[in-house]
Amino acid sequence: MSQRIQIFDTTLRDGEQVPGCQLSTEEKIMIARELEALGVDVIEAGFPISSPGDFLSVVEISKAVKIPTVCGLTRAKKDDIDVAAEALNHAAKGRIHTGIGSSDIHIKHKFKSTREQVLEQGVWAVKYAKEKGYEVEFYAEDAGRADLVFLAQLTEAVIAAGADVVNIPDTTGYCLPDLYGKRIQYLFDHVSNIHKAVISVHCHNDLGLATANTIAGLTHGARQAEVTMNGIGERAGNTSLEEVAMIIQVHKDLGLHTNIKSERIYELSQLVSSTMRMPVQANKAIVGRNAFAHSSGIHQDGFLKHAENYEIMNPADVGVPSSSIVLTARSGRAALKHRVELLGYHVEGDELNTLYENFLLVADEKKMVHDADLVTLVTNLEILQK
Amino acid sequence: MSQRIQIFDTTLRDGEQVPGCQLSTEEKIMIARELEALGVDVIEAGFPISSPGDFLSVVEISKAVKIPTVCGLTRAKKDDIDVAAEALNHAAKGRIHTGIGSSDIHIKHKFKSTREQVLEQGVWAVKYAKEKGYEVEFYAEDAGRADLVFLAQLTEAVIAAGADVVNIPDTTGYCLPDLYGKRIQYLFDHVSNIHKAVISVHCHNDLGLATANTIAGLTHGARQAEVTMNGIGERAGNTSLEEVAMIIQVHKDLGLHTNIKSERIYELSQLVSSTMRMPVQANKAIVGRNAFAHSSGIHQDGFLKHAENYEIMNPADVGVPSSSIVLTARSGRAALKHRVELLGYHVEGDELNTLYENFLLVADEKKMVHDADLVTLVTNLEILQK
Repeated sequence: MSQRIQIFDTTLRDGEQVPGCQLSTEEKIMIARELEALGVDVIEAGFPISSPGDFLSVVEISKAVKIPTVCGLTRAKKDDIDVAAEALNHAAKGRIHTGIGSSDIHIKHKFKSTREQVLEQGVWAVKYAKEKGYEVEFYAEDAGRADLVFLAQLTEAVIAAGADVVNIPDTTGYCLPDLYGKRIQYLFDHVSNIHKAVISVHCHNDLGLATANTIAGLTHGARQAEVTMNGIGERAGNTSLEEVAMIIQVHKDLGLHTNIKSERIYELSQLVSSTMRMPVQANKAIVGRNAFAHSSGIHQDGFLKHAENYEIMNPADVGVPSSSIVLTARSGRAALKHRVELLGYHVEGDELNTLYENFLLVADEKKMVHDADLVTLVTNLEILQK
Repeated sequence: MSQRIQIFDTTLRDGEQVPGCQLSTEEKIMIARELEALGVDVIEAGFPISSPGDFLSVVEISKAVKIPTVCGLTRAKKDDIDVAAEALNHAAKGRIHTGIGSSDIHIKHKFKSTREQVLEQGVWAVKYAKEKGYEVEFYAEDAGRADLVFLAQLTEAVIAAGADVVNIPDTTGYCLPDLYGKRIQYLFDHVSNIHKAVISVHCHNDLGLATANTIAGLTHGARQAEVTMNGIGERAGNTSLEEVAMIIQVHKDLGLHTNIKSERIYELSQLVSSTMRMPVQANKAIVGRNAFAHSSGIHQDGFLKHAENYEIMNPADVGVPSSSIVLTARSGRAALKHRVELLGYHVEGDELNTLYENFLLVADEKKMVHDADLVTLVTNLEILQK
């Protein structure tokens, strides 16, 4: 039986805090509405105590969306929780996301504290946040490097204190997929009350493994994935919403599903990229300009014969109009013939060989060959043969 | 005992065939020399039969580098192999990379062939290429979707025919890390002569899993990784050299090592990006502009206390001069105080509180707060208090 995965989008919190990505409240509302249309389950709308602008954004997003849960970030501090609770006042469904460091590196060097004190403060924060009447998610910051026995104790304690969701973040992007999956498995094996809460995965991409770690967490029992559009976020960013959603959709063998309407992905990717002034690189998986473009001769020929030769998804599944073919010096005869036919010419045999030789000379010179060049080449061919 | 992984760079072949990325021969030589200085073991320099420009580039790169093996791509065809052998004539160490589709989808729809014919053609191509006197690498195209029993037969047959290296590519970027690792493991368990060849992994990033799949392949016995700088390549690109190199360097627990001089990574990333006109997105792992930038208050505070709180690598390890801190509305008091001190001011107590409140107003308005703004804010503070 397929298991439902909750998609927790933090584009407007973990994404928006990146240098240069800051949005106006109006832009945040626009993106929040599109996230709602995309089908995300939770929108993390900001960190209310961090600035007046962030507070206002959480208030306005709470008013603007009806279906997703709206979430506000806090530290495990009274003022943070009070302000977040106030900001979420208008939310149809609100969630307070509170937490504290769980690795010895964070406990010792950041909090100048002890495991016992951190556990006590975490439990207190969950109880205090629960009193506000919202759902409560607890994050065990830097869980990717935490002592596993302590992480299990902390998880058990915050669930007992009322946490509805426990987030096990790989804050520094350190984990390997095997290692991260085993951490999640360990919690399922050692936390007696774990089935009373949803376990969430929140991965960073410092080593390029955020998506793989997220999938490893989900296959070991986590049921919420924390993601951003285009993988934006602190440093090398967060897990990409589009990659997780499409892996789950393409790999039915995982036995998972989400509520994401994948055909809306591309448009929202473009909106986030333009409003946040964060260009997506051409070779970004799923949403990059070249993600569905075929250029080498071998690939173009195979693709023209049967799209499935080189495509595991249909570009329309993510809202990209169609696969594009660009001619370069690496394009083969089949691609050239196909393109020329789209332009209304039929060329074959020796004529195609001559056209192809001329095409390669132009392609070596100009790098990319446009339709106008092809028309010139075909016309020259006809003139020469008359 | 740590196992040595060979790094096979295909920036100049699988990367360069991308629309808009085409380089002049001079640019290719410059990048090849930098790849040599970086410490890669193999440079795939082009697909010699594909165009006169590609042929020339393989010739010139063969002359330009001395330490790495220079490799030319071919199909399993006589003309391809003849032309590649000629192009590699000046190489100190040359390799012919030949192969054919191995999945039923490719065999049926691309080659209109059968498994038996494909196997026969592959064996023939390896023997013919070996006669040229070079190392021979065989690629089993679309191995990620191939029937495993057939893939093992094909691998055994081409090794028996003399292949020095067998490449098991996930051509369409379809595999999950577990699945891909198990494919490599299956080959080690079922191919009797497998230890006579090096097994190579070549992954594409269509689902954002190329790096994770590559690491899964290496942990299951593969000893060569095929990569590109910045992960450029067809569609969503290839595995990123910088990610694989740094995972192996950071995770000593993997028991692997490479010859990569990691402190040269950043400079070469910039060179590839600029010559190929392929911007690297700010949140790209390892080499993105923001990869080592901290902006949120929680993170900045933790980072200033102890860099290891949020960094698993030293930026200098990859040649980035230093971690950068950018102030925004999400920056906290500690980051503000630190930055202001770097500018020569000491502010604390109530004065710091007032400065921080004013700073937040400016940050909400201007998004990014520059040093000049900070000087104005501090100066205003001093004026107000006089």
